[in-house]
Amino acid sequence: MLFATSAGSTPLLARYRSIREQTQALCAPLTPEDTVMQPMQDVSPPKWHLGHTTWFFESFVLQPHLPGYRPFHPQYAYLFNSYYNSMGSRVARSDRGTLSRPPLEEIYAYRRHVDHWMEKALADEGFLQQPQLLDLVELGLQHEQQHQELLVTDIKYILSSTPLMPAYAAKPQPVYESFQAKEPQNEWCTVPAGTYTIGHQGEGFCFDNEQQPHQVYLPEFKARRTLVTNAEYAAFIEAGGYAQFQHWLDEGWQLVQQHHWQAPLYWVKQEGKWWHFTLHGLEEIEPQAPVTHLSFYEAQAYATWSGHRLLTEFEWEALAQRHANPVAEGNFLESGSFHPVAAAQPSGSSGAAHLLGNAWEWTYSGYFPYPGFKTAPGALGEYNGKFMINQMVLRGGSCATPQSHIRPTYRNFFHPDKRWQFTGIRLAQP
Amino acid sequence: MLFATSAGSTPLLARYRSIREQTQALCAPLTPEDTVMQPMQDVSPPKWHLGHTTWFFESFVLQPHLPGYRPFHPQYAYLFNSYYNSMGSRVARSDRGTLSRPPLEEIYAYRRHVDHWMEKALADEGFLQQPQLLDLVELGLQHEQQHQELLVTDIKYILSSTPLMPAYAAKPQPVYESFQAKEPQNEWCTVPAGTYTIGHQGEGFCFDNEQQPHQVYLPEFKARRTLVTNAEYAAFIEAGGYAQFQHWLDEGWQLVQQHHWQAPLYWVKQEGKWWHFTLHGLEEIEPQAPVTHLSFYEAQAYATWSGHRLLTEFEWEALAQRHANPVAEGNFLESGSFHPVAAAQPSGSSGAAHLLGNAWEWTYSGYFPYPGFKTAPGALGEYNGKFMINQMVLRGGSCATPQSHIRPTYRNFFHPDKRWQFTGIRLAQP
Amino acid sequence: MLFATSAGSTPLLARYRSIREQTQALCAPLTPEDTVMQPMQDVSPPKWHLGHTTWFFESFVLQPHLPGYRPFHPQYAYLFNSYYNSMGSRVARSDRGTLSRPPLEEIYAYRRHVDHWMEKALADEGFLQQPQLLDLVELGLQHEQQHQELLVTDIKYILSSTPLMPAYAAKPQPVYESFQAKEPQNEWCTVPAGTYTIGHQGEGFCFDNEQQPHQVYLPEFKARRTLVTNAEYAAFIEAGGYAQFQHWLDEGWQLVQQHHWQAPLYWVKQEGKWWHFTLHGLEEIEPQAPVTHLSFYEAQAYATWSGHRLLTEFEWEALAQRHANPVAEGNFLESGSFHPVAAAQPSGSSGAAHLLGNAWEWTYSGYFPYPGFKTAPGALGEYNGKFMINQMVLRGGSCATPQSHIRPTYRNFFHPDKRWQFTGIRLAQP
Amino acid sequence: MLFATSAGSTPLLARYRSIREQTQALCAPLTPEDTVMQPMQDVSPPKWHLGHTTWFFESFVLQPHLPGYRPFHPQYAYLFNSYYNSMGSRVARSDRGTLSRPPLEEIYAYRRHVDHWMEKALADEGFLQQPQLLDLVELGLQHEQQHQELLVTDIKYILSSTPLMPAYAAKPQPVYESFQAKEPQNEWCTVPAGTYTIGHQGEGFCFDNEQQPHQVYLPEFKARRTLVTNAEYAAFIEAGGYAQFQHWLDEGWQLVQQHHWQAPLYWVKQEGKWWHFTLHGLEEIEPQAPVTHLSFYEAQAYATWSGHRLLTEFEWEALAQRHANPVAEGNFLESGSFHPVAAAQPSGSSGAAHLLGNAWEWTYSGYFPYPGFKTAPGALGEYNGKFMINQMVLRGGSCATPQSHIRPTYRNFFHPDKRWQFTGIRLAQP
Repeated sequence: MLFATSAGSTPLLARYRSIREQTQALCAPLTPEDTVMQPMQDVSPPKWHLGHTTWFFESFVLQPHLPGYRPFHPQYAYLFNSYYNSMGSRVARSDRGTLSRPPLEEIYAYRRHVDHWMEKALADEGFLQQPQLLDLVELGLQHEQQHQELLVTDIKYILSSTPLMPAYAAKPQPVYESFQAKEPQNEWCTVPAGTYTIGHQGEGFCFDNEQQPHQVYLPEFKARRTLVTNAEYAAFIEAGGYAQFQHWLDEGWQLVQQHHWQAPLYWVKQEGKWWHFTLHGLEEIEPQAPVTHLSFYEAQAYATWSGHRLLTEFEWEALAQRHANPVAEGNFLESGSFHPVAAAQPSGSSGAAHLLGNAWEWTYSGYFPYPGFKTAPGALGEYNGKFMINQMVLRGGSCATPQSHIRPTYRNFFHPDKRWQFTGIRLAQP
Repeated sequence: MLFATSAGSTPLLARYRSIREQTQALCAPLTPEDTVMQPMQDVSPPKWHLGHTTWFFESFVLQPHLPGYRPFHPQYAYLFNSYYNSMGSRVARSDRGTLSRPPLEEIYAYRRHVDHWMEKALADEGFLQQPQLLDLVELGLQHEQQHQELLVTDIKYILSSTPLMPAYAAKPQPVYESFQAKEPQNEWCTVPAGTYTIGHQGEGFCFDNEQQPHQVYLPEFKARRTLVTNAEYAAFIEAGGYAQFQHWLDEGWQLVQQHHWQAPLYWVKQEGKWWHFTLHGLEEIEPQAPVTHLSFYEAQAYATWSGHRLLTEFEWEALAQRHANPVAEGNFLESGSFHPVAAAQPSGSSGAAHLLGNAWEWTYSGYFPYPGFKTAPGALGEYNGKFMINQMVLRGGSCATPQSHIRPTYRNFFHPDKRWQFTGIRLAQP
Repeated sequence: MLFATSAGSTPLLARYRSIREQTQALCAPLTPEDTVMQPMQDVSPPKWHLGHTTWFFESFVLQPHLPGYRPFHPQYAYLFNSYYNSMGSRVARSDRGTLSRPPLEEIYAYRRHVDHWMEKALADEGFLQQPQLLDLVELGLQHEQQHQELLVTDIKYILSSTPLMPAYAAKPQPVYESFQAKEPQNEWCTVPAGTYTIGHQGEGFCFDNEQQPHQVYLPEFKARRTLVTNAEYAAFIEAGGYAQFQHWLDEGWQLVQQHHWQAPLYWVKQEGKWWHFTLHGLEEIEPQAPVTHLSFYEAQAYATWSGHRLLTEFEWEALAQRHANPVAEGNFLESGSFHPVAAAQPSGSSGAAHLLGNAWEWTYSGYFPYPGFKTAPGALGEYNGKFMINQMVLRGGSCATPQSHIRPTYRNFFHPDKRWQFTGIRLAQP
Repeated sequence: MLFATSAGSTPLLARYRSIREQTQALCAPLTPEDTVMQPMQDVSPPKWHLGHTTWFFESFVLQPHLPGYRPFHPQYAYLFNSYYNSMGSRVARSDRGTLSRPPLEEIYAYRRHVDHWMEKALADEGFLQQPQLLDLVELGLQHEQQHQELLVTDIKYILSSTPLMPAYAAKPQPVYESFQAKEPQNEWCTVPAGTYTIGHQGEGFCFDNEQQPHQVYLPEFKARRTLVTNAEYAAFIEAGGYAQFQHWLDEGWQLVQQHHWQAPLYWVKQEGKWWHFTLHGLEEIEPQAPVTHLSFYEAQAYATWSGHRLLTEFEWEALAQRHANPVAEGNFLESGSFHPVAAAQPSGSSGAAHLLGNAWEWTYSGYFPYPGFKTAPGALGEYNGKFMINQMVLRGGSCATPQSHIRPTYRNFFHPDKRWQFTGIRLAQP
């Protein structure tokens, strides 16, 4: 098993319950109609997420490894398989929005059914002594956490698609100092030249794509302490950034013209001011908060326009090794903010702010295999490796990432035109 | 007003209530998720139908003519306008499936709000004395009946789009003899040559597209007494009809190849037998029942293959004048059959069976204006006239048409590739 | 044979030579590169026209009927079959522009080869006594004349596609009085109510789609004596015609927005004046000449805007029966004008001007079969019948139609969005 | 100037003449019709290549730097600009195939005109003393050599698009031993772990994308001495490689299904044997010659299936530093082979065969900027940098690359789905 190194057994059951409940809690504010929407192909209906994460445990843990287990419904393997060719045919990704049935309550019954058997298994001494099965359970939990992030971003896109633009959640009280941030300083961290070990080492879970750890030589570089803010990005817009080809990669420039991009996704200008749709409804942009919902093209164009560049994923990981700032970190899914927050006032710390959480940081690195990368045999070999083309690596997690899910070696990846994730910009020089 | 000649006032209120209730009754078996589905562009979500029919009364009756009326919601005019350029901008047709909100219960509140004011108006002596307003109410009711038919066909398409293929309604007991039909005879009605008056005359409501009545000269022709049956159409399939270009119009032949059409919509072959999805679930085809869910191209190809042809809409109307068979008619929305039924045993009557109801009959006539056709001024002028291109006329209504909505002069119209309505074939010769 | 009633034998050979030479004469001004262009799918490369018209004689006359004939090249049947499924597979229509080979000179060798054998056959007494073969030759000649018109319109589109916009031919001196036309009067011809015989009767060639002649009853109507002029159409543009949905059929209005139509095809505005590309190069529009290169949608919108309507094809033919104006007719392919010309000064004649020639007149009639229409058996049955859907009938021929090819019963047909033919508008009322 | 380090002046004039003549020599076998074809968007018409390479000298050398120079034609800047936004608007790439005019002879006149002035400048002492101008001339020559390669591959695609599949050139006699190659041995070169300097250093021209040279640490790896052969690739096909998702990246697998890929581009199976279209016409595949015309996806799938992997571009360059085999190299544009040839029999040399020439080698490296990469100011800054997304790096040149154009640091780049270049596979392990 290439993925998991699992922890002890008792916490596993607790984690199982907690993660499974968290998924359902994220869906609680939705109407039944919200749960079947697929307003664009990248978005999956929440009901499908609820079913698919459950199918994962059923297909990879219960059915092959728990004697006597019977699938909840003979057609669910067809309905809730995402992209595993090894697991047979399935509903086309673009057709997930046609599934009005099964009704929502039946999906919850499906979850209860699978949870019942999973809890039974996780309480079974014999089961717990099979490390391979614990690895599978761990992978299922990590997988469900990935879908929690997608649930948040998909729900945001779904709610933004109705002209009524309803709020998903009330805006929380600021719970840490960063909400009272002052003007971020244009401060930079220096990472010295040298050979760095990139990739996951040691204990704890990681995905196969974080393997193998390997040496990368890097020249010295500087990285911005804080992410690019809404105010900074608005200056780029006002300066004509979206009308000047010079800053853009050619395919990005074509998208700008084809889709008439004028600002990040969800931004609208009303009476001379920028507003954006958030999970709290339509709000005026907060100048000091990080800009988010950008394509790679926009991130790269901003960096070029401002005389800087993006980091590579290797630089990013070296930065995290040298300048992590444990104090100032925060703003994960658990904060309930559902939006990136301004960085805290620099307080003598030289660390980079919000390396983890807040907003995914586009890197100028393609999502390709590390040296020695191997896929697992069978269906789980399709988990990551087959997507290693045409996508760019993002690092660090976002306000929609569960805190226990993220780590500095984590490699997220999206096509460079995607904008519906909580994506942001960290600048590098020279 | 070009559309309506309304009847007396008391029945109008009763009809208003009855028709409005019927729409909601059709939606009762649905889950909330079903009501927001748009699995293809032609289909509108049931929730949208519920809102749009209500918006029609609000926009054309209450808001302009009822002093003091306030719209239920400022954005509903944007959400529920279908295609009236005169009424301002609107949600694109292809995006109706993105409207998870407003929630279903709010749509019902909208309906209650509008019904409350409509009933108040319809109980008001002054209001009732304005013939133009009665015409508008009548048009609103006819409009809502059109959407009842679309609700049935759209629901069928929606339910067919989930692999679970749930039933919408239990199959009713056969309520008239036609369900016990024997083999339909290959019997033909002769319509003599002569000049016929085509179009609506006399009292009662009609749409503008049925005007003006005019003279059409027709040579003698024969029309089949009964519609082409499933058994007859299956013979066409088995004879290779979908593999032989000779029978097809060129654009139809291209569609056959592009979409791999092998049979009518909803038909599937399982273990050597034809089944089809109905609103009662997946069922084996009934050999004597009329074939339905055909494009014009398939209807025309069948007619050619069998050595016959389709009628023109003028011939169809002349046939209805000469050979209507009031006894044998039936099978409208009210029957609850939700599917065409076999024609009754010929019983001495020489009339054409099921001219009205059962299945719409494709004619080989384009949907064009009659001589002297005029559109109403303003938004209602957009009701019919602007669609008079590239569509073919269908006649007679179907099992999803309310009985009080159909008449022999009624002109329905669809593009020749459409298959999701209850469409069938009546043959002509020579 | 449903198509032809051929004339005597001697003239046939002369006609054969003359028509074949005319095709080549039309290609003489082209560069070799011009002859392979397909800048849009509707356009066929001139080289393909040269080959296809030759293939027609080879495939339908020589190969089946002339013993000992050997095809010029084994692959030409594949290269030059247009749309005859009966004749086997072929180059896709959209790929005709990929045929750089065979080289132009080889196509001319192909023509010489086929002409050699055709002339031999046409000089053979035995051959000439087979009426069926004479019919086939006649059809081949009519077919080649159809392609002459397409050559002119396709060449125009090809030359317009290079920014250099070269002239194809010098502008001829005006050869008849119509070039000195004064302001056309707004004069109308009245056609009385009655039953008219529509379709081809008597001697002479006609296509199958002009059969059978049949009775049509028409109410009285009026038709404009002259076609709508550039000046009149420019007034529609200046009045905002392309910005007001009210005048347009819905599908036309969508095209206006999608393609940003602002004027007829080939029109450009330069320094406040309208110019258009003609086969003589870019020229200022002539106010009194008929407007041309309009879609059906534009013709219909203009008619609506001006308070009139288009004729049906039946009305058009009745108009031709009642008001043909033999004196004023003219401007066919042979005139070398390659563009519609202004109508001659009304001179006491009550006839409709330019019913034949000048510009095809869109009618508000779908291209459907006449009563009793039958297709020929075999490949020639694919000539016309299979296109009888989604197209509108045009009547009267144009400046690109050979004079001997056109007649009042001739039915041309195009999809309503097509603009690259010489199409114009004749108005009707009421 | 970031691009060029030019050599002395006298050879420059000779090189200018030689390169310009070579371009025209490549077009000599074409018919005029061949020169305007664009059978797919990636292909440019040969006439356009002839014009565009000339426009490059006119626009970047003559017009800005040669006093008194007048452009040949005012519209050619519009016709022959490829993608330089800085140089104004231009014919859309997809519309290059609509340019039947200017005629071919006029393009040659354009070339003579520009050559006349260029030769005049290159003979001028004052001009020659401006290093910046020499850099521009050098860039123009390198640019023209790039288009020579494209001419060969575009011509191949053009000729393959007509069913006649004509030969472009006679097959040359084998001029070096590699044509008599025996079975290639499965031999591997080992490259030791270490830090390598990647990128261009020292004298001589390079493109901006080869800058800056930088250190890259690489673990030890092995690379195959020879490219994968047709016989080896055919074994992959016969083993079901195109029917098994396991070997493919997900987007590649989708392309396989969408385009029904079954073999490399140009391969066809006839009576159980594989043939392919070459510039010598249709030929049976030579088992020992390298397989070519593969997408990155096919190269990667083959590597996976065979238990190996592709190199990164850094590994490739390190391989070239360690194992270049000057003796065995060869097969560039100048050989006239127009197709990859089998590797010579291993003869005691441990070098990798055909690192340069023969076939471009797909690497598993995205085309991204090197550390310190800078674009030139102005239009030439658009030359390379703006394409650094979604493309994969290819190394080593091909049988269509001029020998003087290629070097080990050269970075070519194409989207991973492209197949019309001479692309091949070099395997790596582990």
